[in-house]
Amino acid sequence: MTRATSAHSADPAAAATGHLSYEQAGVVYDLIDPVKICAQRAAASTAVQLTAHGFAEVSASRGESAYVVDVGPFYLASIVECLGSKALVADEMARLTGRSWYAGIAQDTIAMAINDLITVGATPLVVQAYWAAGGSDWFGDADRAQDLVAGWKAACVTCGVAWGGGETPALAGIVEDGRIDLAASCTGLVNPKQRLSLGDKLGAGDAIVLLASSGIHANGLSLARKLVERMPEGYLTEIAPETHPGLSYGAALLAPTTLYSPVTEALWKAGIAPHYCANITGHGWRKLLRHPAALTYRIHTVPPVPPVLAFIQHEAGQDNREAYGTLNMGAGFALFVAADDADQVVEIARSLGVDAWVAGTVEAGPKQVLIEPLDISFGHDDLQLR
Amino acid sequence: MTRATSAHSADPAAAATGHLSYEQAGVVYDLIDPVKICAQRAAASTAVQLTAHGFAEVSASRGESAYVVDVGPFYLASIVECLGSKALVADEMARLTGRSWYAGIAQDTIAMAINDLITVGATPLVVQAYWAAGGSDWFGDADRAQDLVAGWKAACVTCGVAWGGGETPALAGIVEDGRIDLAASCTGLVNPKQRLSLGDKLGAGDAIVLLASSGIHANGLSLARKLVERMPEGYLTEIAPETHPGLSYGAALLAPTTLYSPVTEALWKAGIAPHYCANITGHGWRKLLRHPAALTYRIHTVPPVPPVLAFIQHEAGQDNREAYGTLNMGAGFALFVAADDADQVVEIARSLGVDAWVAGTVEAGPKQVLIEPLDISFGHDDLQLR
Repeated sequence: MTRATSAHSADPAAAATGHLSYEQAGVVYDLIDPVKICAQRAAASTAVQLTAHGFAEVSASRGESAYVVDVGPFYLASIVECLGSKALVADEMARLTGRSWYAGIAQDTIAMAINDLITVGATPLVVQAYWAAGGSDWFGDADRAQDLVAGWKAACVTCGVAWGGGETPALAGIVEDGRIDLAASCTGLVNPKQRLSLGDKLGAGDAIVLLASSGIHANGLSLARKLVERMPEGYLTEIAPETHPGLSYGAALLAPTTLYSPVTEALWKAGIAPHYCANITGHGWRKLLRHPAALTYRIHTVPPVPPVLAFIQHEAGQDNREAYGTLNMGAGFALFVAADDADQVVEIARSLGVDAWVAGTVEAGPKQVLIEPLDISFGHDDLQLR
Repeated sequence: MTRATSAHSADPAAAATGHLSYEQAGVVYDLIDPVKICAQRAAASTAVQLTAHGFAEVSASRGESAYVVDVGPFYLASIVECLGSKALVADEMARLTGRSWYAGIAQDTIAMAINDLITVGATPLVVQAYWAAGGSDWFGDADRAQDLVAGWKAACVTCGVAWGGGETPALAGIVEDGRIDLAASCTGLVNPKQRLSLGDKLGAGDAIVLLASSGIHANGLSLARKLVERMPEGYLTEIAPETHPGLSYGAALLAPTTLYSPVTEALWKAGIAPHYCANITGHGWRKLLRHPAALTYRIHTVPPVPPVLAFIQHEAGQDNREAYGTLNMGAGFALFVAADDADQVVEIARSLGVDAWVAGTVEAGPKQVLIEPLDISFGHDDLQLR
């Protein structure tokens, strides 16, 4: 229970130039966190309900990216995830370009759920769609609606999941007119049970493999949307005229989130079960500290930074520490694997079109991430998720 | 993928008195249906994805209230459901009464998912929360937020499910300021597999047992909210001063939806597996026609109508056919069971505090519902869900 996205306000101060932090972009975690903690405690207290059914929760999954229940022959994993505010960028780009960007938005929404679900070692099986529009007329734009359907289906096929169904409520008075609130729920199985990757096997000597992101994915959009207010050409601003002529800020932001389940499924087929996984979303590379163990994560190789993230870092005036602590900076997913498997993990990912790097090692030591090429470190206090 | 709720508009025509249909309350199914059909076809085409995992969908669950996959030792059922617009009534009543109504709203949201999931014979195991607020400040009202948490937990305990986690995004720019979009996903198992109740055992001679609703539940709120615009005292209007002195329209609307999973679980413990179930939500008693088979459902006993539904029927100037075709009119859930089990089903439900009636029989004949005490019938053309 973590994500918060900000208002797309017309705050004049934001239109100024200069440094812009994630907090200044309007995300107020302080107001959400007490509820989150209260909800987490209440949720944890309900685990005992499963015993009446002869089942039990896997308590190590509390605080992880998906909830896991031991149902005997395998583990059941489930999740619901929200897209966040990326659809607002799609809406503005539709206005500017005259075409729908919702196929990619569909993939983003599914990725939010799938990429979290697989961190526990689950094979995603069923996705349900939650498409809450501001009014029936949202669905009256047939091109956009069909684009959403087509993108949703395509992402399901990529991930090998069945699209079970879902809800398409029109929620005038709750969802803003002309907008849509998108979310996905996903159910999967950890099967066989030794695929469970909640981190009990994570330890010193493991390798850290990073999988490439396609761009900003669906986290950091509040900051990205705030920055656009400073740009005279807005979302049509070219972000890298020399290396990527014609690539607009809006189009780059809307690159669909990479779906990582084909990689984790292929790894298992090759006999590789990651010791732990981290989906790098909000909090950027601080997510490498996700596991509760006291371990040091030493990074020796940093992936290339996608142009849109380099552009955001520059425009927001962020130093490397702030950028890597907020955005994925080119690494969308981290696999912690046995050192002997690392090269094969990279090879398998690349064979599926997902670039990958053996980026570092897990060591005994205090809980910290050391990004050596950039001389950055994040310590225990830099990530409080539970 | 079915529900639509209308705008809470200030349409002056709606403030007039006289007949008000559900369509006039602002629900425009025509705009949603083409997308729904397109999405249903795309979703159905993804079923083949499960074969790569050694599993298969239970295709009879397409078009039913929850999606079912055969995973070997048992069936996996999953769903995501939206509350709809009932939270708008809670917000207005909070303004009028100075207290939070969100514990009940939490139960309503969970009921939307649980009561659908159990129709296929599943035991609900895990609920995930989807609470998308219009801004971080929604969670700043600690009483309301804690009420939501407490009600959510209590409903999970009633249903014997674990609250796995969820999402609490703040979606300014998508969700309206001061509002919250509530949904729940639920995952369960049909275990043992003979509990599956997709209707293959439904046939002539079965009894129809109706379980009492607590009121409007969370369907028909668009109509209910439209009607309030006609009332000088609004939600504080007393709806039945003689029989229920002091009962306001708002408080009556906000009676939390009955949770039916304790009944279906108790039935199985007594060795009773319903042949089919229908959650009576939108479309009212037309939902008794949900199963695709050509059968006649003859109703000889009609439950008492909750005061709030009698009031709505009167205020909207609806005849019985329209009211029973739109609202639950006192019957929140229908169980189609072997005739010999019917009395015991009623007894078990009543022992759990849910009133119940042996209300009718299933007969060979054209697809229709005959509500004999009211001289109403609904035919094949009155419900098109697939």
